[in-house]
Amino acid sequence: MTLASLQSQPGVAAEVPAETTGFVFNHTMLRVKDSAASLDFYTRVLGFRLIDQRDFAEAQFSLYFLALLPAGTVIPEGDDARRVWMAGIPGVLELTHNHGTETQHGPVYHDGNSDPRGFGHICVSVPDIQAACKRFDALDVPYQKRLEDGRMKHLAFIKDPDGYWVEIISNTPIA
Amino acid sequence: MTLASLQSQPGVAAEVPAETTGFVFNHTMLRVKDSAASLDFYTRVLGFRLIDQRDFAEAQFSLYFLALLPAGTVIPEGDDARRVWMAGIPGVLELTHNHGTETQHGPVYHDGNSDPRGFGHICVSVPDIQAACKRFDALDVPYQKRLEDGRMKHLAFIKDPDGYWVEIISNTPIA
Repeated sequence: MTLASLQSQPGVAAEVPAETTGFVFNHTMLRVKDSAASLDFYTRVLGFRLIDQRDFAEAQFSLYFLALLPAGTVIPEGDDARRVWMAGIPGVLELTHNHGTETQHGPVYHDGNSDPRGFGHICVSVPDIQAACKRFDALDVPYQKRLEDGRMKHLAFIKDPDGYWVEIISNTPIA
Repeated sequence: MTLASLQSQPGVAAEVPAETTGFVFNHTMLRVKDSAASLDFYTRVLGFRLIDQRDFAEAQFSLYFLALLPAGTVIPEGDDARRVWMAGIPGVLELTHNHGTETQHGPVYHDGNSDPRGFGHICVSVPDIQAACKRFDALDVPYQKRLEDGRMKHLAFIKDPDGYWVEIISNTPIA
């Protein structure tokens, strides 16, 4: 579909409102059972950096903010500067940990892909999807859909420690 | 919390794995009842652009990909070039519309914030949060939490047509 025809689909605004200049789709929030397990998965398996953490001792929850940053990105050291910087970039992942859920047996949260449905997945794009999936195999990452499963051979879905689906696609032209 | 201490939280990998170079947190997928209503909300109220659409007639669903782009961003015209470009940027929102849900009465999807919980919200950051919220008022956008509600006076939550929460925060220092 051409770019021009996309702009005339039912519901699409004729113009980008001037009042939305500077708006940024900053983050997506998911609740997680065990913050250490999730931080391990998102940093060690997928390469996210932990860029902010906020602990609410009285209300018994913590927020973890992560981002997949281009190599060489300089993260501001100071808390205030880092928080303003973080609010201005897209692609932040916020994980909410309600203290104590990590000791419960079995899954605590709903992945959104069985009833009642809603949220579907997050997606990480990679330069070499074959190499990425081989590495996930070597790291024993569980899959929802392997590259070779089904009709769509150019994408995979892995699962994070809570069972949330993480789609893996290529961000380079596939030969 | 200092940047250095964040890197030693339980679970955080000691180093960003070299194999994740070029990984991008590309998108978040939400199912929507009525694509026209959602495209109207995300483009007219929040300033997203529709940058790709994929219709699966046989399987009776369509995918809409939107992004909040910095002013002046040049979107590639050609489908192939646009799709590679789109896969390489963070902050894309994918909306899945299962054909026919728009004729059902009442809500079709679950927002994740009542049992069974999981997904929480997406967040759009804005340069002038007071002006943004005044405009949402003028546009009769429903709120989950107004700026002045509760203890957190520096953030709001509006609701999209399916009831998904959209947090609104400032991406500039608040005076």
